[in-house]
Amino acid sequence: MGILAVGSVALDSVKTPFGFEPEILGGSATYFSVAASYFSPVSMVAVVGEDFPEVALTLLQSKGIDTSGLQRQKGKTFRWTGEYGSDLNAAKTLETQLNVFADFAPKLLEGHRSLEFLFLGNIDPDLQRNVLEQMKRPKIVACDTMNYWIERKTESLKQTLTLVDILLINDAETRQLAGEPNLLHAAKQILGWGPRTLVVKRGEYGVLMFTAKSVFSVPAFPVEQVVDPTGAGDSFAGGFMGYLAATGSVEESSLRKAIVFGSIMASFNVSQFGLRRLASLTYTEIQERFREFRRLTHFDDI
Amino acid sequence: MGILAVGSVALDSVKTPFGFEPEILGGSATYFSVAASYFSPVSMVAVVGEDFPEVALTLLQSKGIDTSGLQRQKGKTFRWTGEYGSDLNAAKTLETQLNVFADFAPKLLEGHRSLEFLFLGNIDPDLQRNVLEQMKRPKIVACDTMNYWIERKTESLKQTLTLVDILLINDAETRQLAGEPNLLHAAKQILGWGPRTLVVKRGEYGVLMFTAKSVFSVPAFPVEQVVDPTGAGDSFAGGFMGYLAATGSVEESSLRKAIVFGSIMASFNVSQFGLRRLASLTYTEIQERFREFRRLTHFDDI
Repeated sequence: MGILAVGSVALDSVKTPFGFEPEILGGSATYFSVAASYFSPVSMVAVVGEDFPEVALTLLQSKGIDTSGLQRQKGKTFRWTGEYGSDLNAAKTLETQLNVFADFAPKLLEGHRSLEFLFLGNIDPDLQRNVLEQMKRPKIVACDTMNYWIERKTESLKQTLTLVDILLINDAETRQLAGEPNLLHAAKQILGWGPRTLVVKRGEYGVLMFTAKSVFSVPAFPVEQVVDPTGAGDSFAGGFMGYLAATGSVEESSLRKAIVFGSIMASFNVSQFGLRRLASLTYTEIQERFREFRRLTHFDDI
Repeated sequence: MGILAVGSVALDSVKTPFGFEPEILGGSATYFSVAASYFSPVSMVAVVGEDFPEVALTLLQSKGIDTSGLQRQKGKTFRWTGEYGSDLNAAKTLETQLNVFADFAPKLLEGHRSLEFLFLGNIDPDLQRNVLEQMKRPKIVACDTMNYWIERKTESLKQTLTLVDILLINDAETRQLAGEPNLLHAAKQILGWGPRTLVVKRGEYGVLMFTAKSVFSVPAFPVEQVVDPTGAGDSFAGGFMGYLAATGSVEESSLRKAIVFGSIMASFNVSQFGLRRLASLTYTEIQERFREFRRLTHFDDI
C-alpha cells in the first residue's frame, strides 16, 4: 500500500567527531521516505526553495519516491546546522533558517488524498490536522512531534492525537507529554488520549512499543561506529511505516516486525553521514540484518 | 552445583523518593546470595561486626543460604548511607563506614574450597585473587568490580581478569576499563584480557552480553514503580550465576537464559525497599516473569 509522508526537506550542515558535512540533503520527510522506499511506494509532501539542488531531486526519484508533492517556492530551502559531541547522543542546534519552511501549508494533490498510510512528520499540530482533513480515508495515520509543540501547542497536539493511530516520539517527549516520569504510566496516559499504539524511541537504548494490551521492547542494533545520528528517528519511522504498508497489516505480530525494521534502518543510517548509507542499501542487506537482530535478542524457553 | 559468593554484608540506610529505611540488611554478597538461592545452593563469605542482628542471619538461613563463611569480628558491621534522586538512576553516597569490612581478608573453609561456581563481588582485586588461590578447581569464576578499583588498581584488576571466566560490570565501567567510548570496541578489548564472557549492565536500559562469537542484548523488564534500586546489580548477578549453577552449563543458550533470570531478579528487587521483595518470591513467580519476558521481547521471523 502507498504511504504519504508530510514533513521537512532541508539542507543540513552537520558536524560530528568524524567530520563536517556542509549543506547535505536532510529533513524529516527525506529520511523517512528514503527508509520507507525499500518496503513500499512513498509520496513526499514538503516544500523546498529555488536553490534546491536538482541532483537531490534525482536522488529521491532514484529511490522510486514520488516527489510530485514537493512544492518549489520562492526563497531559500530550510537550513539546519547542528553539532554532536563525543557521545553522539544529542544534537546541539547551531542555526536554524526556516526560509520557505516557515510558511509551509501543505495542499495535497488529488492523487495523494486517497493513500492508505499517512505519516505526519514533526510539524505544527494545526498543520498536521489540516493535512488529515484533506485525506479521504487513510487506513493508518502515524505522527511524530517534539518538545517545541508539546510546550507551545499542548491542546492542539492533543486534538491531533485523538485522530492518529500511532504516535512515535522519544522517551523524554513521552515523559514531558504525559507529565509523568515513569514510562509505563506515561504510556498508559497517552494511549488514553487517542493513539492505539505508542512507539517510544530511546536512541542507543532501543525502542518500546505500547498498546492497550501489550508492551514490546527491543534494544538498538549495536553499531560499530556511530558517525552521524541525524535522521535516525525519521529513518526508524520510515522503516516502521514502510514495513506496515508493505504487509497492509497492523496486527501485533506485524507491528513488532515493523519496530525491528525501523531499528534496522536507523542502525544503517547512523553509520555514515547524511543519507550516504541509507540511500545505498539493498533489500538483502536489510533482511540479513533482520536475521542478525533475531540472533541478537532471542533466547530459548525454559 | 554449589556457588561460593564473596563480598560485603552491610547495614544500609537508604533514602529514595518513596521513603527512608535506616539500617536495613544489604551488601553485595547478601543481594547476590538471596537472588541465587532460588536456583542453587549458595554459601556466603563475608564479614560482619558484633552488632550484626541475629534476625538478619535467620533471614539468610531461611533462604537456605549457607552462612558458615560469615565471619563475625570485633567492631561494627559495614554501614552505607545513600540517597537516590527522582530519576532513581544513580545513588549518591552520603556516608560509608567500612568498619570490620576495612580488614576483610577472606579465609575459606575447607568445604568451600571445592565449590564449582565462584562469584567474586566488588572487592579489592588483590583479595579477589587471594580467594581464587584458595579454591581447588572452580568450574566457573565470575567477578564484579567498580570505578574505584579501575582507577586505583588497574594492573591488579587486569591480573584478576586473566583468571576469570565472566566479568559483570556496568556500561560506564566498561568504557572506563577499556578507555574506549564505543561499547562494542570496549567489549572486544576487555575480552582480549581474559574473560570469555562480558556482561554489561545498563540499569533501566537492560543488559548486553559479549563473547568472542556473539552479542546478546535484552532490555530491562519494565517495572511499574522503581522504589529502591539498591542491590539491583548484585541481584542480577545472583540470578545469572544461580541459573548457570543450576544447569551446570555455560553454553550460549544457558548464558542467555541466565541473563534473563538475572534481569528478572533485578526487576523484582527494585520494586520494594531492601530485600523485601527479593526475599519473598516464589519460584513460580520467577518462571511466570520469564514467560512475560519472552512475550516482551520476541518477534516472528520474516
